[in-house]
Amino acid sequence: MTDRLTDAERETDLAPLLDKGWAMDPRGDAIKRTFVFDDFVHAFGFMARVALVAEKMNHHPEWTNVYATVEVRLTTHDAGGLTMQDIVLARRMEVLA
Amino acid sequence: MTDRLTDAERETDLAPLLDKGWAMDPRGDAIKRTFVFDDFVHAFGFMARVALVAEKMNHHPEWTNVYATVEVRLTTHDAGGLTMQDIVLARRMEVLA
Repeated sequence: MTDRLTDAERETDLAPLLDKGWAMDPRGDAIKRTFVFDDFVHAFGFMARVALVAEKMNHHPEWTNVYATVEVRLTTHDAGGLTMQDIVLARRMEVLA
Repeated sequence: MTDRLTDAERETDLAPLLDKGWAMDPRGDAIKRTFVFDDFVHAFGFMARVALVAEKMNHHPEWTNVYATVEVRLTTHDAGGLTMQDIVLARRMEVLA
């Protein structure tokens, strides 16, 4: 979970996320996605649900909230890039959004 | 509450916040502050408390969270700059932090 993604994992696990609205971050080996909700209550509700998951995983997003919008960036600092932890958290976000 | 701060209000209401760790945002008539907590639980706990206050005020922060750090930017888009709503929300954040 804490090693950088292999080429094979990038094909099998990362590529499907990139097809579903996630994008590589030009600033490094990280993925980003912008979630847009109806209003602040829904945006922050999403953040609260993700926060509980993230804390349980001990793997936390970098994220910015402006009213109904939540911009998320995922990477694994200890590994210097994307790991399966990022993949798992991104998948959980997809379900929670 | 929704008019731009007057010069007098900037002296009496804004200046004390600037003395307490808030700073003017070089990108416009807005104030910023970075809050640093012990860990993610404390950082997100702060955000959850502020979120309830913000929703009740119908005045929301722009904010970024990276683990234990929360960067906040306050301005009033409808007014094109700082209003008493920003002052009130900043003061509430001081109490909640």
